Order: sequence, then structure tokens, then C-alpha cells
Amino acid sequence: MDTLQAIRARCSYRGKYAAVKVLREHLEKIMRAGLAAPSGCNKQTTSLIAVDDSLVLERLHVVIQPPIGESAPAMVCVLTRRIVSYRNKCYAVQDYSAAIENMLLAAVSLGYQSCWVEGHVTDDGEIGRRMAQILGVPDEYELVCFLPIGVAEEPCAPAQKLPFAERAWFNAFGRNG
Amino acid sequence: MDTLQAIRARCSYRGKYAAVKVLREHLEKIMRAGLAAPSGCNKQTTSLIAVDDSLVLERLHVVIQPPIGESAPAMVCVLTRRIVSYRNKCYAVQDYSAAIENMLLAAVSLGYQSCWVEGHVTDDGEIGRRMAQILGVPDEYELVCFLPIGVAEEPCAPAQKLPFAERAWFNAFGRNG
Repeated sequence: MDTLQAIRARCSYRGKYAAVKVLREHLEKIMRAGLAAPSGCNKQTTSLIAVDDSLVLERLHVVIQPPIGESAPAMVCVLTRRIVSYRNKCYAVQDYSAAIENMLLAAVSLGYQSCWVEGHVTDDGEIGRRMAQILGVPDEYELVCFLPIGVAEEPCAPAQKLPFAERAWFNAFGRNG
Repeated sequence: MDTLQAIRARCSYRGKYAAVKVLREHLEKIMRAGLAAPSGCNKQTTSLIAVDDSLVLERLHVVIQPPIGESAPAMVCVLTRRIVSYRNKCYAVQDYSAAIENMLLAAVSLGYQSCWVEGHVTDDGEIGRRMAQILGVPDEYELVCFLPIGVAEEPCAPAQKLPFAERAWFNAFGRNG
């Protein structure tokens, strides 16, 4: 799928997923897209775990409460290491966000839908920490997000956004065209 | 250009740009791609200013020291508002990072190259603040990044990355395949 088309077609899908397996080859392509994202000073702070084993998915969904993306046949969990890249600065959030966006676009371009699930995971309930335990993630990595991956069974309505002219300008703040 | 191809072709270009104008239509497409990125609770914390006026570019490059992307005929400046989206959490960094990644991919797919310039801009030298002043950006917005946009005159070597098997696994940390 064309890049600009995939960017427009991406949406935060919260509906039911079809009972159609996600090919391993596709999960690998999605993860390779994530790892191809830039990272601050090329520190590569982002790591990924794709889950397509139904028993592991089931264990993860026990801790994901309230449930999100339960019907998805696969997910990608996003891990970060909050290490300093440069002059006491850590770009881990930028790094994993760029990786996530690449994976969302790759998923769409391969015919899947997904949703960036982060707030839920990093809240006080410590869902992320419990998911990390299930996946055997060492302490120096933090699980900050998961992306359900699957074929959407319902249409996905794109989020309503402010008009272009209220968020994008030319040559000065507020100048349209 | 195909999405996965654009993701692989993107690189952090630090070479010289050709003296070829970037079409307004293309700058708009690149910014629309940025604004199409998801944002935490759809708060749309990211705004953009494309600069293609050579006098404005010149003024900006006076404050961008040491120089980066000086020969690029255009740039997109990325503004953020660090507002709370949800339960005292602010997703502004995630929001603008996803928008930046979309714009980098859109630029590549339209035949341009670019580079995510952030550390330089947000350092103590306050380059971002001085760029914001030149562009008339109000105080509630912070200029955190700029993307030079132009046709690359030199080849762009992709960053060396760790092997897939050291950053991506299946069903458990460290499990390959």
C-alpha cells in the first residue's frame, strides 16, 4: 500500500477482530518496520515481543483489565530502556513512539488494523509490569505499550481532527498559505 | 512509494541538499501526514510550521548553530503543547514523535530526504525558543524539532542497527521464532 494512503487509512481500531491468524512473516515485517525507525543517537532503546501463541495471549489478557483488543489473534509488545543518549537526555519515548507509528503503518499496509495502547498499560494498575513478568522481560526493560494486530471485523472511524488551517501554517505561526 | 519501502528508505540525511524547490503541494502533503498521526486521547498537541521563504529560512539558520540542514530549501518546524491528556499524563512527546515519523515517511515517499533534528534544538542554547520567536510562536507552544526537507544530493547511508534477533522476539523475551 502507498505510504500516504496507509497514513490516511490508519486508525485506532477498538472493534472486534476476525478469527484470522496473523502470518509469522507479517509479524516479522511489522517488527522490522518498527526497528527501522530512527532513535536518538542511534541508541536503539526499543525492543519488541510479538505474541501469537494463544496460551500466552490468554495469560496476558487476564492482566489487561478492562480488556482491550481481546479478540486480536496477535499483539506486539513494546519494550523500552530509558538510557541516556546524549548530554543527560533520554530519547526513549521519542524512539518507541516512532517505532510504534512505523508498526501501525506496516500493519495497515499488510491488511491489518491495530491500536496504540499505552495509557492503560502504564497506569498505576501496573498492567505493563505484569505483562512483562509473563513474558520474562528483565528489569532493565519497561513494557510501555502493546499493539493488538489482526484483521478488523468492523469499519474503523478515523478520529475527528481539527482543520488543517488550525494546526499547520506557512512561514509564520497562524499564517495560512 | 510503498509503505514498507519508504520505512526502509528513510534515513537521517545530513548531507547537502540540491537547489530544487520543494513544491507547496508537497509541503502540505507532508504536514497532512504529520497531522494524521494518532495522539493521546486525540488531544492533537502537535502543530506545524512549514518554512519555504528564503528570507525566513536565512533568519532561522542564523540561530541554528552549529548549522544543520542549511542547504535544504524548506523545513518543517514541530510545535507542541504539553497539556494533560488523561489522569495527569501528558502524551505530547509521543504525539509529536508519531507526527514526525509520518512526515519523514511522507517526505521519502515524495522523493525528498530529511532528518529529525531535536537534541540540537532543545539544548541549553535555546535554539528552539529563538526559532519560535522568529516565527511568532505564542508562549504556550514549544518548538521542539525541525525537519529540513529537500532533494538529497548525496547518498544517505542507513544507520547501522543491531540484528533483528537481538531486539525482537516471539512469545517471550529472548525467544527467536
